[in-house]
Amino acid sequence: MSDYLSAEAARLAPYTPGEQPQDQQYIKLNTNESPFPPSPRVVKALSRAELLKLNLYSDPTCAALVGALARRYELKAENIITGNGSDEILAFAFRAFCGEGRPVAYADITYGFYKAQTALFGLDAHIIPLREDFTLNVDDYLDFPGTIVIANPNAPTGMAVPRADIQRLLEARPDRVVIVDEAYVDFGGESCVPMIYRYENLLVVQTMSKSRSLAGGRVGYALGSPALIAALNRVKYSFNPYNVNRLSLIAGAAAVEDESYFATCTAAVVRNREWTARELEALGFTVLPSCTNFLFARCGRLSGGEVYRRLKENGVLVRWFDAERIRDYVRITIGSLEQMTALVDELGRLLDEL
Amino acid sequence: MSDYLSAEAARLAPYTPGEQPQDQQYIKLNTNESPFPPSPRVVKALSRAELLKLNLYSDPTCAALVGALARRYELKAENIITGNGSDEILAFAFRAFCGEGRPVAYADITYGFYKAQTALFGLDAHIIPLREDFTLNVDDYLDFPGTIVIANPNAPTGMAVPRADIQRLLEARPDRVVIVDEAYVDFGGESCVPMIYRYENLLVVQTMSKSRSLAGGRVGYALGSPALIAALNRVKYSFNPYNVNRLSLIAGAAAVEDESYFATCTAAVVRNREWTARELEALGFTVLPSCTNFLFARCGRLSGGEVYRRLKENGVLVRWFDAERIRDYVRITIGSLEQMTALVDELGRLLDEL
Repeated sequence: MSDYLSAEAARLAPYTPGEQPQDQQYIKLNTNESPFPPSPRVVKALSRAELLKLNLYSDPTCAALVGALARRYELKAENIITGNGSDEILAFAFRAFCGEGRPVAYADITYGFYKAQTALFGLDAHIIPLREDFTLNVDDYLDFPGTIVIANPNAPTGMAVPRADIQRLLEARPDRVVIVDEAYVDFGGESCVPMIYRYENLLVVQTMSKSRSLAGGRVGYALGSPALIAALNRVKYSFNPYNVNRLSLIAGAAAVEDESYFATCTAAVVRNREWTARELEALGFTVLPSCTNFLFARCGRLSGGEVYRRLKENGVLVRWFDAERIRDYVRITIGSLEQMTALVDELGRLLDEL
Repeated sequence: MSDYLSAEAARLAPYTPGEQPQDQQYIKLNTNESPFPPSPRVVKALSRAELLKLNLYSDPTCAALVGALARRYELKAENIITGNGSDEILAFAFRAFCGEGRPVAYADITYGFYKAQTALFGLDAHIIPLREDFTLNVDDYLDFPGTIVIANPNAPTGMAVPRADIQRLLEARPDRVVIVDEAYVDFGGESCVPMIYRYENLLVVQTMSKSRSLAGGRVGYALGSPALIAALNRVKYSFNPYNVNRLSLIAGAAAVEDESYFATCTAAVVRNREWTARELEALGFTVLPSCTNFLFARCGRLSGGEVYRRLKENGVLVRWFDAERIRDYVRITIGSLEQMTALVDELGRLLDEL
């Protein structure tokens, strides 16, 4: 490693994002994108007149986007911060609420990026194993004195924790921040947003990358009490005050205002998920119950790595994590019915050849 | 301050960006934006077909934008990293090259954001005063054992250091990283880019916010040796792997490919700057020599704060820093000739009234 690196940078654990082949030759079911284009309102809002204003800085307070979110979630502007994707928002939260004497706890099997951020800020992390069946036992977190991060629904399992369980964590220690990462909540999870006015220590993080068809626009946000949002703003203004660009501000606001398009797209994904789960089970797969836009499934006859490799050879990309406990599984994004049919056909062929 | 804050977040020193009034009632000469819209090639490249792909993640390697920069600067892809504005790139650099046992040095009067990032990463900073006339004495840095950051040309003074001076710093200690922040270099500074192949310890940071009319697009980049760029990527993949959105990648590449538009716009700014400097001097102002798209000027008859306030009351926004040594100055962005004429007329009126 280079001598120029600081000791802190040498200790980092960089995240490996899913493959993003730029040639579009694959049926891409590996990074949980929406199969649907952004709302027509997004495309219309990104007008020529707006493009011609790119010489001017974006609004650092992101007021228009924050306002649209406030109306959608029945909150106030002081309850909201927006960012360059929810990864940035999570980084702000890890810095704001964790540090010396303030450890962080999260599950052994969850969004891999939490580990990268733990290393980035040199945090003391308590990794708490999920149960054998991949459910999360909130009792394991009740007495934890630091900050808790729960992806709900969880990735890559797709499984959700009831809101009442999160509520127990919030009440057990009101001095402790609970970060609920709801990246996938719009596909069937139980959101904690309605509890924001009640619990000052609750931070909900969401993204427009999945249910709002804006992965390429990079728009994430956190919803919480004014105290927590002010803390996140301290970090934002120390790191990158103009963190959301002009076009993403416009796209994000237009997306959140098109409720009917959102409802149509998320309903279609849920329908395709249920269809795909049944088909996979018919092929002998074990499929975990999913509240998300992906399925976590185990073949039984082939290892997860083999399923991943053989599908890739045949033009279908899914995600495989070469990690303990989940090595036998693949994570399959729910795309269009056409894409899911192609996946199921391909898997059928692979298994027939065994 | 909230009890939820980590000790590290409590110690932050958030940056205050220049006012960004959203109502456009001002002649806005306070944040060093370009008075010209982005290149017509940028507007054309942001096509409907591209907008319809916003549901897909952006390329985390930013290959198309990196490729365009590589062609423009005669470098290789491994010499380049792009970011969500150069503020993000600077943050990556502060984390990658500074830390425990690796202090950072910069001038007392320079880009205010360095202080915010010093606090963000808890760094030991050596603040080295500029000379009385605001020139930078490189001898003051020659023996410094940590990382050096020099804004060249400097903000808010507008004054530049010769490339040969930077070269002395690079050679004095090859084990030490020198970060040259060239945000304003395209308006008359001497870029260090031609030295990149020669000095492994040189990192040049640039932005498309000023000379490329893309402040609202948030595109910054660093150019340097593969070792330094790899270090920055370690931080990026620990913080936000998809840090540049799809539309900014496209806009940035189109902007960097339109060399003639770039040349026309920067030449116009330089012409308007020279005209404005003469007019200000005719009004009795002391104007520092500028290699940038702004002027740093002292009225003599009114304090900097008074000039700022009276101009604002009359619809012209400039930037004033309420800080030691520069309190008597205002920083005036160079806009269109029409805008600069309005500024000069307004100042003339204010001074006549005294």
